[in-house]
Amino acid sequence: MALDHIFASRAARMKASEIRELLKLLDRPGILSFAGGIPDPNLFPAQEFAAACSTALDPAHAGQALQYSVSEGYMPLRRWIVAHMAQLGIEVSVDNVLITSGSQQALDYLGKLFLSPGDTALVGWPTYLGALAAFNAYEPRYDRLTINDNRAPGDIAQAAEAGGGRVKLAYLSPDFANPTGETIDRPGRERLLDLAETLDCAVIEDAAYQALRYDGDDIPPILALELARKGTIDACRTVYCGSFSKTLSPGLRVGWAVAARPVISQMVLLKQAADLHSATMNQMAVAEVADRCFDSHVTTLRDTYRARRDAMLTALAAHMPDGVTWTKPEGGMFVWLTLPIGTDAAALLQRSLDTVQVAFVPGQAFFADGSGANTLRLSFSCADEATIAEGMRRLGQLLRDA
Amino acid sequence: MALDHIFASRAARMKASEIRELLKLLDRPGILSFAGGIPDPNLFPAQEFAAACSTALDPAHAGQALQYSVSEGYMPLRRWIVAHMAQLGIEVSVDNVLITSGSQQALDYLGKLFLSPGDTALVGWPTYLGALAAFNAYEPRYDRLTINDNRAPGDIAQAAEAGGGRVKLAYLSPDFANPTGETIDRPGRERLLDLAETLDCAVIEDAAYQALRYDGDDIPPILALELARKGTIDACRTVYCGSFSKTLSPGLRVGWAVAARPVISQMVLLKQAADLHSATMNQMAVAEVADRCFDSHVTTLRDTYRARRDAMLTALAAHMPDGVTWTKPEGGMFVWLTLPIGTDAAALLQRSLDTVQVAFVPGQAFFADGSGANTLRLSFSCADEATIAEGMRRLGQLLRDA
Repeated sequence: MALDHIFASRAARMKASEIRELLKLLDRPGILSFAGGIPDPNLFPAQEFAAACSTALDPAHAGQALQYSVSEGYMPLRRWIVAHMAQLGIEVSVDNVLITSGSQQALDYLGKLFLSPGDTALVGWPTYLGALAAFNAYEPRYDRLTINDNRAPGDIAQAAEAGGGRVKLAYLSPDFANPTGETIDRPGRERLLDLAETLDCAVIEDAAYQALRYDGDDIPPILALELARKGTIDACRTVYCGSFSKTLSPGLRVGWAVAARPVISQMVLLKQAADLHSATMNQMAVAEVADRCFDSHVTTLRDTYRARRDAMLTALAAHMPDGVTWTKPEGGMFVWLTLPIGTDAAALLQRSLDTVQVAFVPGQAFFADGSGANTLRLSFSCADEATIAEGMRRLGQLLRDA
Repeated sequence: MALDHIFASRAARMKASEIRELLKLLDRPGILSFAGGIPDPNLFPAQEFAAACSTALDPAHAGQALQYSVSEGYMPLRRWIVAHMAQLGIEVSVDNVLITSGSQQALDYLGKLFLSPGDTALVGWPTYLGALAAFNAYEPRYDRLTINDNRAPGDIAQAAEAGGGRVKLAYLSPDFANPTGETIDRPGRERLLDLAETLDCAVIEDAAYQALRYDGDDIPPILALELARKGTIDACRTVYCGSFSKTLSPGLRVGWAVAARPVISQMVLLKQAADLHSATMNQMAVAEVADRCFDSHVTTLRDTYRARRDAMLTALAAHMPDGVTWTKPEGGMFVWLTLPIGTDAAALLQRSLDTVQVAFVPGQAFFADGSGANTLRLSFSCADEATIAEGMRRLGQLLRDA
């Protein structure tokens, strides 16, 4: 007596993530792993969080920290975010801010808000796997988002109509994206806004890695550019999804969304219905730690991760054979390799584990259309420079032997 | 330039909760409020949580507490739940347990898993408002669930078919339900299981208040009764939704679901896609506090809330005029009043606030069909006995004058 036969049709779209299953296997001792995409736990501001939680749970605050709170989020944290967004050139009020349980939750709510079955979501080929997972629950069709597309917007709209809906959103992570590490330049962001205007769709700006820039100049967020065009946040179609996961802590599950008031109001209703609110104590702790040391902590992260990125790019240049290319990320956690056409990165991973004991993520899972078999993702966030050098040496050897 | 015109159709079903809007108004000084349905914050085990968070954030554990973790949940907490369920007569393994961000999140995921637009959810008239909010996002039709229904199951199924889908689930809170405070007796639970077999639908057992029994004998959970029939959890159609919100802390957002493995597996995928996992530190803290003092803490809660319930029932008997009836809950936080037909509880609330300054929740919002105008909900969880006595005296006076 299983209940599968009465599951909603969307359940058929929910598949176990190959990558997550893979990552479980890769955390074996002896493996040099560049597969994970998580922050280095040695860099968490643990003492600051211990102090903040101790304050939140003292007799003066515990009744609030352990109690239900409003779906919109903890007001001092929303105010901190308003100030943070202003530094990014985005002037908003607290009514434009919703606290979410990580930016992943914002992606779920935005899928829920915009996508009916058959609607089209524009995503990169490749794109963040978690975005595909979140949107899949709402049964969209995917089409390829490229910033330098020479397809006429009318053709994209027509294909969406043929797919049974319309283009509802374009999703992208413009800074040091997972998985490619690539950044969209300012003209690209402007072109994306033009496209969104023509298609009359929402833009979901996933800013998970935004604070982790190691060199080059800051580029205004897409929402900042749209705000400059329109003059008021409430006229904007871009939803900015922020996260403390890559800066302060992923385990506390605190992120945020910033958007026009009608969008935030709907997201508040969705959140109220879905989990009431994000954990009160966590929001209080993050507000205090962010207030106390966000900028200085991010500076430390940048210095550490920059050195690891440099080590990886240096080692790749030294050890990769001809025919292998890779991205040169200005921030984030990832370098993206393209192998000669015909190479199967999944088979290569198996061989790598069996011989040189180096782990990475085969790239195919990041493509909504199942292409990309000759690509792979490397993360430099959790390994020291010597491990990175040795790992790239081994991987280069393996590729030369292949 | 609003985006409303490209929202998915489900957005039309998401409405601001009148009750939540109302509650904001009712928290004024001078009001004797029996409107909220929240635990008394003075009873939170704050010191125990402070100690547990301090441990979770010490150098030996912080790297785990602040890091990403698996979607299924923190293993020691899942083990505690396995032991807890066994005490309730429900033998399961950790593979049958998913940690959720409150039981509200389980309701969202179960709506997502089972309901396609037009499918039927059977719910009580009245029922928990948050369940209607969670399910609404999946655009179901509602039909009335009554335990002593004399409608033939075939008629229910036929009405569901005419509504464009089939009966997918029956939702209820069998112990001291919100809003009525009523409990389904054992024969009623067995009849419900018979009905679910005939209709071939899931049963969602919302056990949010289960631990808060003040007198009378424990009744086996619906899942325990189904398990006794079928012999193995993996053959059961009941999903048990538990919560620490009414026992340890709502603000930490930790609850759980127990069900057949195929259902839990799907819920894990939904959770992975929707928010990756519930906050790691919170799960660690709840596991430690539950381990240390769950039973003794619940005993304290029962003693305190029992005295408040007694005070409310005594005062109602002393002050309510003829024609007003109310439930006699054996646990939980709520008493449900039925006023003479024709009385409008919403208008009464306005008069009450203007004159005797007593707050309650008009009952209509709890009815999926919009009936119940002559009902209201009183909560005794957050007021001391003297306040309860005075509040009921004033309310009785108001009703006599009306």
